Amino acid sequence: MITFEEALSLITQKTGDIRFPKQPARLYAPIAYLLALKGKKLRPALTLLACSLYKDDVRVSINMALAWEIFHNFTLMHDDVMDKADLRRGEPAVHKKWNENTAILSGDAMLIMAYKYLAKYPISCLKELLDLFSTTATEICEGQEYDMQFENRLDIREEEYLNMIRLKTAVLLGACLKSGAVLGGAEAKDQDLLYDFGINLGIAFQIQDDILDVYGDAAVFGKKIGGDILCNKKTYLLVSALNSNNEEARAELLSWLQVNDQPEQKIEAVTKLYNRQLLREKARNQMDSYYKKAIRSLNEVDVASEKKTVLMEIAKELMNRKT
Amino acid sequence: MITFEEALSLITQKTGDIRFPKQPARLYAPIAYLLALKGKKLRPALTLLACSLYKDDVRVSINMALAWEIFHNFTLMHDDVMDKADLRRGEPAVHKKWNENTAILSGDAMLIMAYKYLAKYPISCLKELLDLFSTTATEICEGQEYDMQFENRLDIREEEYLNMIRLKTAVLLGACLKSGAVLGGAEAKDQDLLYDFGINLGIAFQIQDDILDVYGDAAVFGKKIGGDILCNKKTYLLVSALNSNNEEARAELLSWLQVNDQPEQKIEAVTKLYNRQLLREKARNQMDSYYKKAIRSLNEVDVASEKKTVLMEIAKELMNRKT
Repeated sequence: MITFEEALSLITQKTGDIRFPKQPARLYAPIAYLLALKGKKLRPALTLLACSLYKDDVRVSINMALAWEIFHNFTLMHDDVMDKADLRRGEPAVHKKWNENTAILSGDAMLIMAYKYLAKYPISCLKELLDLFSTTATEICEGQEYDMQFENRLDIREEEYLNMIRLKTAVLLGACLKSGAVLGGAEAKDQDLLYDFGINLGIAFQIQDDILDVYGDAAVFGKKIGGDILCNKKTYLLVSALNSNNEEARAELLSWLQVNDQPEQKIEAVTKLYNRQLLREKARNQMDSYYKKAIRSLNEVDVASEKKTVLMEIAKELMNRKT
Repeated sequence: MITFEEALSLITQKTGDIRFPKQPARLYAPIAYLLALKGKKLRPALTLLACSLYKDDVRVSINMALAWEIFHNFTLMHDDVMDKADLRRGEPAVHKKWNENTAILSGDAMLIMAYKYLAKYPISCLKELLDLFSTTATEICEGQEYDMQFENRLDIREEEYLNMIRLKTAVLLGACLKSGAVLGGAEAKDQDLLYDFGINLGIAFQIQDDILDVYGDAAVFGKKIGGDILCNKKTYLLVSALNSNNEEARAELLSWLQVNDQPEQKIEAVTKLYNRQLLREKARNQMDSYYKKAIRSLNEVDVASEKKTVLMEIAKELMNRKT
């Protein structure tokens, strides 16, 4: 058994140990740069922790964890280009520090690099891990595609939104956990339960993100409150509000979506609209329901419950986070 | 044994048989679009033909050939964004028909898709193919990086240029052939000889490309003659001219590189500079020397020489092509 802190420090150490070819410098420097930025490292930690449920020595799962971490950072490098996001973890995004071509090409090299870590596994589990990895990676592309589509749509159904965040965010948590279980030697049933734990936790996590953007504590949130409102980002709250039967509220909301020059007023007005329709409560309930589903799956996992405390605590903390 | 035409028609059929998920349409439609454009399909054909040297039934190599074809088209989709190339095979490039974000994301999905075709192979050869594929893919990214770097450099040494085209173009031909040999059951020595055949043929092919851009027959070339000259593309000819010891010629060349508003005069003047320094002859000699190396490797491959006729003919045709 390892703790969350031990998992994180192992990942940090192993990520730092990665050596890149010296040339061409401009292909590899952006990869080293992005991997060295202080990220959550939640995903690779989940792989180690899932493995740790079944094996005392988690070293077997390190290359898998690195493959996920490299893959996740590849998606960030390309998403930041697509979303025109200038900052990543408080530092210039790769396409700003270098340029877009560099972000595209280094991202491509990073995706291939993730497969190289995967390919280090022996043939006994290689095929299974490869299938899980490619399926998950494809789903994440699909999620990003839906997310971009939603920018131009006002008729998104709640199920569509939930499906998008499942693809874009949740399947990765599920797959990180499942792969760790596979490498730990878990039975298929446990692998699937841990996958479901990750999926539901991931969806709850994203709804929480949507709530924090509007209702977070400005003092600790780290980002400006209302950022999603300002850019009309389709969040759980906005999608719910757009699906409201209250025609008057809907019309008011639609008119605020056109406003670009009154940031404070827009945030205040849209927040009030959410408040009046009790959307914060609705989102919290939805989040809680996914969180509970996650916990039910974790409870069913066939290992001693004290072993599951670490994952239980991580789930709890994610739901109580302020940032 | 299969013929080149049979290989091409098998690839065309199998590429046409690929079924994509219906949704999200905008992720998959660009992939289907690019794969359906009339391309040379030389690379996947080489895989089938190399396999065919050792096995009468080449069906075992089809998924590998498709993986290469999908991978190659992924590089085209991303390269066209990076190079701001508006046309691909005479049709709008994906980033023009849709937009850059679509080309980035569908390209990513395509790279993952190539790995999915690879993952269909049984574990007995999966690891070997995976390593070859990822190594080659990484080298191609390195080649593209050098090619982009060269845009801003005037001090490229000839070896650097040859290394760039080896990475960007030649390793793919080598790897396509080698993977076909692996799947055909060839000995390691033959695998390596076919790889070398591909590498040297690929370098000769690219030098030929550089020559055709300046000295091709406008009536059959398909593109405007002198396109590389107009955009100061670092070709074998330009790199050679920039390395000239003739200071006067070099100064004249450098001044033409600054000219953007006299296309006809620029093409004429630069071509004359090349002519005076006999660079067409130099390039042809260099090309012939790589071609001969390629043929020597093919001759050494340990199968009956009549079996090698197809590859020999392809090599010969590539060297005598007009487009």
